[in-house]
Amino acid sequence: MIGIDDIRASAARAEGVVRRTPLLSSPFLDEIAGRPVFLKAEVLQHTGSFKFRGGWSALSALDPATRAEGVIAYSSGNHAQGVARAAELFGVPAVILMPSDAPALKIANTSAMGAEVVLYDRAGGESREEIGQDIQRQRGLTLIRPFDEPMVIAGQGTCGLEIAEQAAEAGVERATVLTCCGGGGLTSGIATALAALAPDMQVRPVEPEGFDDVARSLASGGIVTNNGPEVGLCDAVLTRAPGEITFPMMQTHCGPGLVVTDAEVKAAMRHAFARLKLVVEPGGAVALAAALFHGDALEEGPVIATLSGGNVDARLFAQILAEGD
Amino acid sequence: MIGIDDIRASAARAEGVVRRTPLLSSPFLDEIAGRPVFLKAEVLQHTGSFKFRGGWSALSALDPATRAEGVIAYSSGNHAQGVARAAELFGVPAVILMPSDAPALKIANTSAMGAEVVLYDRAGGESREEIGQDIQRQRGLTLIRPFDEPMVIAGQGTCGLEIAEQAAEAGVERATVLTCCGGGGLTSGIATALAALAPDMQVRPVEPEGFDDVARSLASGGIVTNNGPEVGLCDAVLTRAPGEITFPMMQTHCGPGLVVTDAEVKAAMRHAFARLKLVVEPGGAVALAAALFHGDALEEGPVIATLSGGNVDARLFAQILAEGD
Repeated sequence: MIGIDDIRASAARAEGVVRRTPLLSSPFLDEIAGRPVFLKAEVLQHTGSFKFRGGWSALSALDPATRAEGVIAYSSGNHAQGVARAAELFGVPAVILMPSDAPALKIANTSAMGAEVVLYDRAGGESREEIGQDIQRQRGLTLIRPFDEPMVIAGQGTCGLEIAEQAAEAGVERATVLTCCGGGGLTSGIATALAALAPDMQVRPVEPEGFDDVARSLASGGIVTNNGPEVGLCDAVLTRAPGEITFPMMQTHCGPGLVVTDAEVKAAMRHAFARLKLVVEPGGAVALAAALFHGDALEEGPVIATLSGGNVDARLFAQILAEGD
Repeated sequence: MIGIDDIRASAARAEGVVRRTPLLSSPFLDEIAGRPVFLKAEVLQHTGSFKFRGGWSALSALDPATRAEGVIAYSSGNHAQGVARAAELFGVPAVILMPSDAPALKIANTSAMGAEVVLYDRAGGESREEIGQDIQRQRGLTLIRPFDEPMVIAGQGTCGLEIAEQAAEAGVERATVLTCCGGGGLTSGIATALAALAPDMQVRPVEPEGFDDVARSLASGGIVTNNGPEVGLCDAVLTRAPGEITFPMMQTHCGPGLVVTDAEVKAAMRHAFARLKLVVEPGGAVALAAALFHGDALEEGPVIATLSGGNVDARLFAQILAEGD
């Protein structure tokens, strides 16, 4: 398990590279939620999502000779960009396996950051593991897993260090912290940081309807999986199951999971547009959706929600804005 | 004239109220511009634009008895919200005169902040000055002018204090600073702050085509005005002429003005969406447009541009995104 010391060490390696993103608020959002709401704006992180924290953390923890050989990652987009940008900054090769139906912006960005993008057809049943393992062995690359990877979790945990500091600056000691949750890297990292630094905060993972493997796993006490393909509006957080490292961390530190609908996610994106002037992707808006529309399921008091990413195609964003008219 | 001491005093009054907005960047934008580009993200300021700085500065400088009587402002939208929110925080009345064709979001927000909004028909020739002076006298309100107002200029200048500090943190000492310019409140405030704290920075005002009163005034050495109505895409920066206080400050401290087209403004908004995950309104994107598309007219070296506001209606934003497809 990753502890607070690993997170602090990751933060030290990130100094001057990873952005300290702002904790924002709006009286309009407070009114909708009926309580103070604070947003951790990870859309403003380098590469447009918190995933750069984990990517940088993982690459900076490798010994230089290993790192120089290059890295490989599997990702539908945000982890891809986080690892690609970290590799670009270190000047080492990166190979990224992405599903061919990932958002076009995410594929284009990953490629523009100098990574070699290998597309695979997930609908057609191609196994990314088989393709990836062949490339990895042939070229001597180091695999950077998207969430079940200790140094990635430590990197995402640096977001929790900042939340603890920024909440204290805002005079908030006791709060519910809602995280956008896929495999649990961000959630377990933040929860570990807050358990050490702000023990009166309770972290609760938020997932989209139909992909609530973490909520069900927490409720049942063991890892359960989603059925069906990992395709939907909230691409960034559609994972089959929590990780073997992240799940016990979430069991130890988190409260029950929450589930939001796609309609709530779209409404949350429109509120972030109008009230925060932020572009949030669907998967990055699930926690805000829970803060705004699921207050009944939350303890009283302030809420802090992560806006975990903003890599959404312009066409989809325009369509979601238009639906709100 | 307002000096650095006035700006520092305004910053002291703003402590804990006005947000220190981040200075952001993206390698993608650097590549388009062919130089390092830094963006001062005032869209993240309270009320979605830098105007809250000036509104808070003006109200906080009034003696409490005068302030308690209430304030009045004329504005197409961002100054309206800045003054309305400052008045709300102080718990004093605010009357805001707005043109009936101002963006719907700006009118709705101003009203939601507790201000009494009085609409006038500018196309029909109603004189806002006559309407406003009547209300002001009857109720004993203090007029807060949008730019030609010493304490408003001092407030906008606090943005320049932050630019000086943040640029130094980023290792930038010499740069061109591009400002979104209407009547010159932000431009003159920033230029005054930088002249004192970062004298190797040159401030250059940016305006939209057809509304380049400041550029022409600076070139001719005296105040000249735009013809025609103040209506266009970039509503936030469409003023008839620079102010009698702001113009001499800009003459003393600024380089020549720059002019951008509406097409360039829209492209800049799309780049801010894709690369910075920020919602920028047309008038708030003129400086970024100059940074990206008018490099030929700039000295070599880094550019810092203000993203001065993000209060754009969803329908217009969606349309501008769609035009980029």
